Amino acid sequence: MLHLQSSSSDRWLQQVDAGLDEILIDHAHCEKKAAGCAMNLIFAYVEQEELCREMVLIVNEELDHFQQVLDLLARRGTRFRRQTPSTYGRRLNDLVRKFEPDKAVDRLLVASLIEARSCERFDLLRRHVADQELADFYGSLFESEARHHTTYVRLARLFAPEEKVMQRLDELAVLEAAIIDEGDAFPRMHS
Amino acid sequence: MLHLQSSSSDRWLQQVDAGLDEILIDHAHCEKKAAGCAMNLIFAYVEQEELCREMVLIVNEELDHFQQVLDLLARRGTRFRRQTPSTYGRRLNDLVRKFEPDKAVDRLLVASLIEARSCERFDLLRRHVADQELADFYGSLFESEARHHTTYVRLARLFAPEEKVMQRLDELAVLEAAIIDEGDAFPRMHS
Repeated sequence: MLHLQSSSSDRWLQQVDAGLDEILIDHAHCEKKAAGCAMNLIFAYVEQEELCREMVLIVNEELDHFQQVLDLLARRGTRFRRQTPSTYGRRLNDLVRKFEPDKAVDRLLVASLIEARSCERFDLLRRHVADQELADFYGSLFESEARHHTTYVRLARLFAPEEKVMQRLDELAVLEAAIIDEGDAFPRMHS
Repeated sequence: MLHLQSSSSDRWLQQVDAGLDEILIDHAHCEKKAAGCAMNLIFAYVEQEELCREMVLIVNEELDHFQQVLDLLARRGTRFRRQTPSTYGRRLNDLVRKFEPDKAVDRLLVASLIEARSCERFDLLRRHVADQELADFYGSLFESEARHHTTYVRLARLFAPEEKVMQRLDELAVLEAAIIDEGDAFPRMHS
């Protein structure tokens, strides 16, 4: 359903155990970036009304999650701060083709894959973390990330026929799997 | 209350009469830009939690207004489209000082003045337009723009003492009055 071409490795769960607070701080940044990315899509494709209306919903939800992570950090006594991001987002964005309408298709499909990977990792986290409040929180995010994934794939079809969209999604999913498998040496949501 | 140093001239209301649909389309773009500006402030000052939480509220409200204007355009049979923006926003942003914390103060105060001017103009519009649905809509926006103005001025005090903030607000309000007085030759919310 999520179109991912790989499952996250145990290496990542070891990073989670070694740096859960860093993961949580990065999670807040990821929700903020997801909202920012949806907002950018409104600006780029403002004449596509269906896209704009879906992006409004996603911005609202991601900012709500952003605040929920800030609340969680506050309850845990962890100060929210800037952090070096993982290389994941930048490396995926480098795959976006330069000219329209391919660019629109790729921006939407990259967003769909990030949502899918987040969804897969929230599912792992909810079964892995000992803290029940945290497990419940990850469980609550799981469904909306899956829904956003589906929305982005559907919106890509505003810019290309379904067959081309699904073929490109497969290509990008293979590249995404390689990027996430390589990861980063420090703990992040997408390391 | 709004700290504006001038009232809009009759010249602007003549532009409204000559191009109400262009004003409405620009209004949708303005709501989108107000949301984008609030989002950018989250990214720029993410460690200021009070600011981030207020910006989340403002992004949500502005995007809600954006959708309300899209609905209104649809009911009027007016196609939403790209448009040359007024020079107002760019000219105000040119006034923002380059180094922190002055930059943060100015970004927030410029946002506060845009909200104040929008508020003043919605009040004019609700009393000017013949269409009752439109008049009611402008009336409904009036209160939130005034509130956003106050929020932005208050947040500027996170970055400078109150006295400095109010002195700079006075300076910027004088410059804003000159910019809005000059206006643009085509009908826009801030022409």
